[in-house]
Amino acid sequence: MAFTHRIRVRFGDCDPAGIVFYPRYFEMLNGTVEAFFAEALDYSFARIHVEEGCGVPTAHLDVDFHAPSRLGEVLRFALRVTRIGGSSAGFETRVTCGEEARLTVRQVIVWTGPGLKPARWPKSLAEGLAAHLEEEAVS
Amino acid sequence: MAFTHRIRVRFGDCDPAGIVFYPRYFEMLNGTVEAFFAEALDYSFARIHVEEGCGVPTAHLDVDFHAPSRLGEVLRFALRVTRIGGSSAGFETRVTCGEEARLTVRQVIVWTGPGLKPARWPKSLAEGLAAHLEEEAVS
Amino acid sequence: MAFTHRIRVRFGDCDPAGIVFYPRYFEMLNGTVEAFFAEALDYSFARIHVEEGCGVPTAHLDVDFHAPSRLGEVLRFALRVTRIGGSSAGFETRVTCGEEARLTVRQVIVWTGPGLKPARWPKSLAEGLAAHLEEEAVS
Amino acid sequence: MAFTHRIRVRFGDCDPAGIVFYPRYFEMLNGTVEAFFAEALDYSFARIHVEEGCGVPTAHLDVDFHAPSRLGEVLRFALRVTRIGGSSAGFETRVTCGEEARLTVRQVIVWTGPGLKPARWPKSLAEGLAAHLEEEAVS
Repeated sequence: MAFTHRIRVRFGDCDPAGIVFYPRYFEMLNGTVEAFFAEALDYSFARIHVEEGCGVPTAHLDVDFHAPSRLGEVLRFALRVTRIGGSSAGFETRVTCGEEARLTVRQVIVWTGPGLKPARWPKSLAEGLAAHLEEEAVS
Repeated sequence: MAFTHRIRVRFGDCDPAGIVFYPRYFEMLNGTVEAFFAEALDYSFARIHVEEGCGVPTAHLDVDFHAPSRLGEVLRFALRVTRIGGSSAGFETRVTCGEEARLTVRQVIVWTGPGLKPARWPKSLAEGLAAHLEEEAVS
Repeated sequence: MAFTHRIRVRFGDCDPAGIVFYPRYFEMLNGTVEAFFAEALDYSFARIHVEEGCGVPTAHLDVDFHAPSRLGEVLRFALRVTRIGGSSAGFETRVTCGEEARLTVRQVIVWTGPGLKPARWPKSLAEGLAAHLEEEAVS
Repeated sequence: MAFTHRIRVRFGDCDPAGIVFYPRYFEMLNGTVEAFFAEALDYSFARIHVEEGCGVPTAHLDVDFHAPSRLGEVLRFALRVTRIGGSSAGFETRVTCGEEARLTVRQVIVWTGPGLKPARWPKSLAEGLAAHLEEEAVS
């Protein structure tokens, strides 16, 4: 039921130890959240940021790194909606390679209107997020 | 006849002007060269760098930026082999979005062995590059 | 008593909303940890990674983002050692701009030997970390 | 007479070969150009992009990579103004480490007004650039 996104580990993601430099995981994670909004919620980041002058900044991150990832591997990012508030939402993303867990991220994002101030979710986004939350609750 | 690779412009690629921050194009370009080696030449960067301790550093770049790229666009990177030397090769990559040219990169890469010293192309790579060069010459 | 490191927010750190793209904070944080090892512990990352084939990967991150940072601002990263284990350590880094809190990071790092396996801290590092921990306990 | 800017090579700048991943040089170069505008021309990127809605995109790059750079090294970026046009300018930046040349970049930047359209340099910038060009011509 989770939204899944696959990303190959590129040369430029890796550090002198030959493994993913951890800040790159957050670029991948942001790309996953971006793909989730565009593909699962039909609300692209271009619409949010450019057309509407809004945003979805991250307010909190809690991350466990289980094992390193290496050049050429394909990582699977599986994102679930764990909580919906009036102007925020909780996501959990599990990153795996084959059967092996690589990292788990618990994240709180906030919907912001003009001036980067928290604002209530637009109706279509609240509904889309709820649909994903309910799916999870049922599963 | 060119090797083509498509990349979507992500939020993290864009600057406060809302367009691609140009150093990100080189990450995309390196990902294209990496995909070309893996998919067209059957010689992955993991094999080159991790297994063999070799490399393909860039020795020269000549870049024309024609027009900016924006959040959410899908860019097409089309790479052609323009020259093959004993331990180097010339690539030209044209980046477009739909019909519009965005940038053109002429690049010289070098094959390096242990200690980052230039070395002769391995036979299979020399042949693979030549096949791509010849295809172009015929087209 | 904390180790402090100042970093100016550059154009390339900022996103289309004009604020720091959060993965860049982790590059800055890693630069701060790197400076702490080199300057406060006299043990450079070049020594750790290149000369000794060891590493200090991050095992856990807990991050609160308090307020956004903007182009041109100078951020102060203040790192304290909060815990020392046999092969791990806890750091807390508070990032501020003037009087304003921007983010707080609680981080667990691990000392790894060859093969990225956790190993006991080298004696000089254990002592250096302890000195910083003790300073904090006294303050 | 050149504007000089020093940057330490950080862990996150380096690739699995242990040397600077070349796209990172362009982040460093952009930071150098940004520092040149702020410090030598007294015209910050925040003023250009945020206050005035203008820009200084790069239109052309010609780069020679002479030798690789390694973790922990301090690189010296020395930028000279080589040409001034109505809405563009030519810069040459030589990057060295001690006596050794690492890369040389010839770059054309363009002043853009609203809508990213090329526009005439503001008077104070034209004068500032000219002062740097003249100094060079005399030297």
